[in-house]
Amino acid sequence: VFSERLSDEVRRRGGIPIELSLPWGTAPKASEIREIIEREGDLKAIFMVYNETSTGVTARELPEIGKIAEENNLLLIVDAISILGGDKLPVDEWNIDMCITGSQKCLACPPGLAMVSVSQKAWEKIEKTEKKLMYFDLTRMKEFALKKETPFTPALPIFWALNEALKIIREEGLEKRIERHRRCAQAFYDAVEAYGLTVFPREKEIRSNTVIAINIPENVEDGKVRQIMREKYKVLIAGGMGKLKGKIFRVGCMGIISPAEVFITVNALGNALKEVGYDLSVEKGLEAAKKHFES
Amino acid sequence: VFSERLSDEVRRRGGIPIELSLPWGTAPKASEIREIIEREGDLKAIFMVYNETSTGVTARELPEIGKIAEENNLLLIVDAISILGGDKLPVDEWNIDMCITGSQKCLACPPGLAMVSVSQKAWEKIEKTEKKLMYFDLTRMKEFALKKETPFTPALPIFWALNEALKIIREEGLEKRIERHRRCAQAFYDAVEAYGLTVFPREKEIRSNTVIAINIPENVEDGKVRQIMREKYKVLIAGGMGKLKGKIFRVGCMGIISPAEVFITVNALGNALKEVGYDLSVEKGLEAAKKHFES
Repeated sequence: VFSERLSDEVRRRGGIPIELSLPWGTAPKASEIREIIEREGDLKAIFMVYNETSTGVTARELPEIGKIAEENNLLLIVDAISILGGDKLPVDEWNIDMCITGSQKCLACPPGLAMVSVSQKAWEKIEKTEKKLMYFDLTRMKEFALKKETPFTPALPIFWALNEALKIIREEGLEKRIERHRRCAQAFYDAVEAYGLTVFPREKEIRSNTVIAINIPENVEDGKVRQIMREKYKVLIAGGMGKLKGKIFRVGCMGIISPAEVFITVNALGNALKEVGYDLSVEKGLEAAKKHFES
Repeated sequence: VFSERLSDEVRRRGGIPIELSLPWGTAPKASEIREIIEREGDLKAIFMVYNETSTGVTARELPEIGKIAEENNLLLIVDAISILGGDKLPVDEWNIDMCITGSQKCLACPPGLAMVSVSQKAWEKIEKTEKKLMYFDLTRMKEFALKKETPFTPALPIFWALNEALKIIREEGLEKRIERHRRCAQAFYDAVEAYGLTVFPREKEIRSNTVIAINIPENVEDGKVRQIMREKYKVLIAGGMGKLKGKIFRVGCMGIISPAEVFITVNALGNALKEVGYDLSVEKGLEAAKKHFES
């Protein structure tokens, strides 16, 4: 869904996107990007989603794609909305020219802010570009930022909340935070498989540590399970988007995620599935999750 | 400043603005708008600022301009940022097709949201327009709003605050709220004149009830006065913007403004001016303000 949105945005801004269309639940490979570059002549930038929130897939070959962008003098523009702060993302080391995220996902701040990092290479391009946008004019934002101001009145309460959220991240330490996300995600994946369910992205390597996408078993009704979880267990999980509507569950594994949330969610999901007639052992799911928190 | 910004935005979006350039501190007259329409042929919309925050001027002929827009089948698009909720603004009665405001002014909510009303006539125009923007695509916002959703994750905490702010407005009553703003503004204007100062907009009729712009007397240093007010009296007022920098003080008279804030500000301004050597009687200023709250 979000990769398509990037492509749509390129088109709206007058660009011609060359799409790498992949089956949902798979990730772009560096070799596929290389092929497109070799086939097409005049390219300007690679746009990609690092973590596809709609499918629970992380594009693990992003560092290699960064190298390809560098070698071919292309800008690399990355949507990292649902992953920044929850998984590895050294933007300079990986040659990411623009990296975009939101306040409300792995940074664990209320919604309302988008953030973007801009490389020197991207600034040079931006400064040469004809300015058409007023609200999203980055050069103007930069000018004001140098004076510690903003061009328009911003959502100040969210700025304060973000400041606090960033302090919390610094206190925890980024490495520890990433490891906590990874461990909680692995606990979810093992629990889900102990229930006899399958994970939506088949390849283990590309399974996201921040969004867990699970195939809904046959004869199980999406809405009913989520309603039981919500009403009886006060646990909110998401359904599928677009063509995955009714086909997958999506569990957020980000921000303040801890063993407690994992157990509560695994328990709620197991019991709700049992209630709609799906045969499983809740204990087995909880046991599988627990193993990840024992060391 | 903000009228110029409207013109700039028309140009950025591919339009050709015909500007009605007026001396700062004056308001557009209906007759001047009519002249432009008669002189120019193919016009599409009238853009105007109802309350110019940078000069403390309210365009009191807005209702007449609305009639002209209606007669000439032009859209009327109004920036009402610093006035909506603090002065009269019946958008339908005045034929205003799009009226834009922000959460942080007279609605007395934290900053972070912009709101826009859209008339049936404007919707028809919008729906026929080629869609280029993603973030500001109103038809998309409308589609989602009908499902009680938003196309993108919004600044939810500010939505809740706005909901509360609107409840407070309903409790007070809009008419009473407007009268409260008017009375506080008149108290400010009289106090300022009792200090021997002059109001920036010369015509009484166009003086804003939400932003009070005062000429800084000769030999008085803008920054020094505001610093004393801020540090000694904990009262924050603004300076001039653009070419009025250093020439005017601007006092916000909006939102939760009440006699208490008027007296505190009049007192702080009077004492700060005395401290920098300007001769005045603080008592006279306070007396002049008080008269407005006696009935």
